[in-house]
Amino acid sequence: MADQDGDHESSSSHDRSHTCFRDWINLQKSDLDQLVKLLNPESGVEEEEGASSSSSSNKHFELCAKTVSHFEDYMRNRAELAREDISIYFAPSWCTTLENSLLWIAGCRPSMFIRLVYALCGSEMERNLSQFLLQGTSNGLLGDLSAGQLSSVNMLQLKTVREEEKLTSRLATLQEDIADQPLAVIARGATQVGETSEEADKALDDHERSMANILEEADKIRLKTLKELLGILTPKQGVDFLVASKKLHLSLHEWGKKRDRLHGRHRDARKPPPQSDEES
Amino acid sequence: MADQDGDHESSSSHDRSHTCFRDWINLQKSDLDQLVKLLNPESGVEEEEGASSSSSSNKHFELCAKTVSHFEDYMRNRAELAREDISIYFAPSWCTTLENSLLWIAGCRPSMFIRLVYALCGSEMERNLSQFLLQGTSNGLLGDLSAGQLSSVNMLQLKTVREEEKLTSRLATLQEDIADQPLAVIARGATQVGETSEEADKALDDHERSMANILEEADKIRLKTLKELLGILTPKQGVDFLVASKKLHLSLHEWGKKRDRLHGRHRDARKPPPQSDEES
Repeated sequence: MADQDGDHESSSSHDRSHTCFRDWINLQKSDLDQLVKLLNPESGVEEEEGASSSSSSNKHFELCAKTVSHFEDYMRNRAELAREDISIYFAPSWCTTLENSLLWIAGCRPSMFIRLVYALCGSEMERNLSQFLLQGTSNGLLGDLSAGQLSSVNMLQLKTVREEEKLTSRLATLQEDIADQPLAVIARGATQVGETSEEADKALDDHERSMANILEEADKIRLKTLKELLGILTPKQGVDFLVASKKLHLSLHEWGKKRDRLHGRHRDARKPPPQSDEES
Repeated sequence: MADQDGDHESSSSHDRSHTCFRDWINLQKSDLDQLVKLLNPESGVEEEEGASSSSSSNKHFELCAKTVSHFEDYMRNRAELAREDISIYFAPSWCTTLENSLLWIAGCRPSMFIRLVYALCGSEMERNLSQFLLQGTSNGLLGDLSAGQLSSVNMLQLKTVREEEKLTSRLATLQEDIADQPLAVIARGATQVGETSEEADKALDDHERSMANILEEADKIRLKTLKELLGILTPKQGVDFLVASKKLHLSLHEWGKKRDRLHGRHRDARKPPPQSDEES
């Protein structure tokens, strides 16, 4: 994490934010390895000989809690960094363009967690039914959600979408404020377009502080939704969900990198266009 | 504009999109010069000796129409480019981070046009009242909006916000679709995270096409709102509005560049972070 590095004083907030994200990607890869090992019976970790169902459940619970605490750490670190330099978080240069096109207030939509549960539940249900009819057993994963669990997930979805819409609307107001006093009037009164003034700097600083607040609130909704969802799922289903969620996030990062390379963008492509880059 | 260059075949879609944006910024600067000259009595263009009020109004009308047609050209050009490479438009590397943090579907919020009218109307109204009381004249700019005009602007605002919300909600659905079939299931089933497959590529291509459609619809709302707004304003008020709107856009671009330099970002800052950039 960013605050474990020794050279903070000399690096820019942009570099530290980039490092923080890179560390988060690497931590997710290592968390995913552990989650997969626990879930996969072939690894021998899940169903150890003599291991009781309750101790197995404890392991799932503990790994879920550890994974969530890593997410919490990441959000705390980036909230601090965002206080120094918020704008970059709304379109980070360290993310791929695919990832950036999917952003909602500098991260994923909390409702995506729930959509993912529905998608996996649907795709597994049929397979589970065959297994149950053939072997009389079920695997206890997301395809085995009970009617009560589905109803709780549904209620969580409604609540989450409402909270998302509320914050989306606050972001809209904040963005529109730019076209109001004082910035619109300062811009209009300027002799030279873009000339700097203390008043404009102050207004932009105020705007950035409000944007940082919105980011923190969005992160709170993301974290709360994740925790409430894991509270509805059994520990084993929770591990199943976290595996799918991490795999999707990391896959999008990799697919995005490949597509950026194909389109000739990503770092090298951030050079000036063929003709002079100068704006007259 | 991008399609006037001779080296298109050899340049990437990213480079051409960057060039298209740079040309648009330059065109706006030149449009702004003409608009300011027409509006400013000191320039001698607005109130030529012997010029009738009607010919002056024609000049304002023609310049408004020319400026809007430039906006239309820009949107047509970028819509074509976005069909080749849409994701980059949601967080363009050629915009400043300040501008990117204000984006709504790859551009400004249409409701910002209306917010700007209210802001300028309010700030000018007091000044105009003093002038009217002292000299018995009014300047015919945005501070002189009639009650009827204000009511029409208000109705336009309500309609625009509704359209914005509708498209915001469609974007949300499109973003959430990523966590559904087929991508969520492909990602989950992959042995190696991010491994490519024809199925994933096809799903991402479909997703990009839908994003390009949303961008075109957002551009349509932006253009329609601008045209309807200019239809409510007198030609002179229209010129006054376009001056303020261009000045705000260009100022944000310049302020953003300054803030990017201060934060050590922008191009140079898109280098790897202090430690190795490799994700393990």
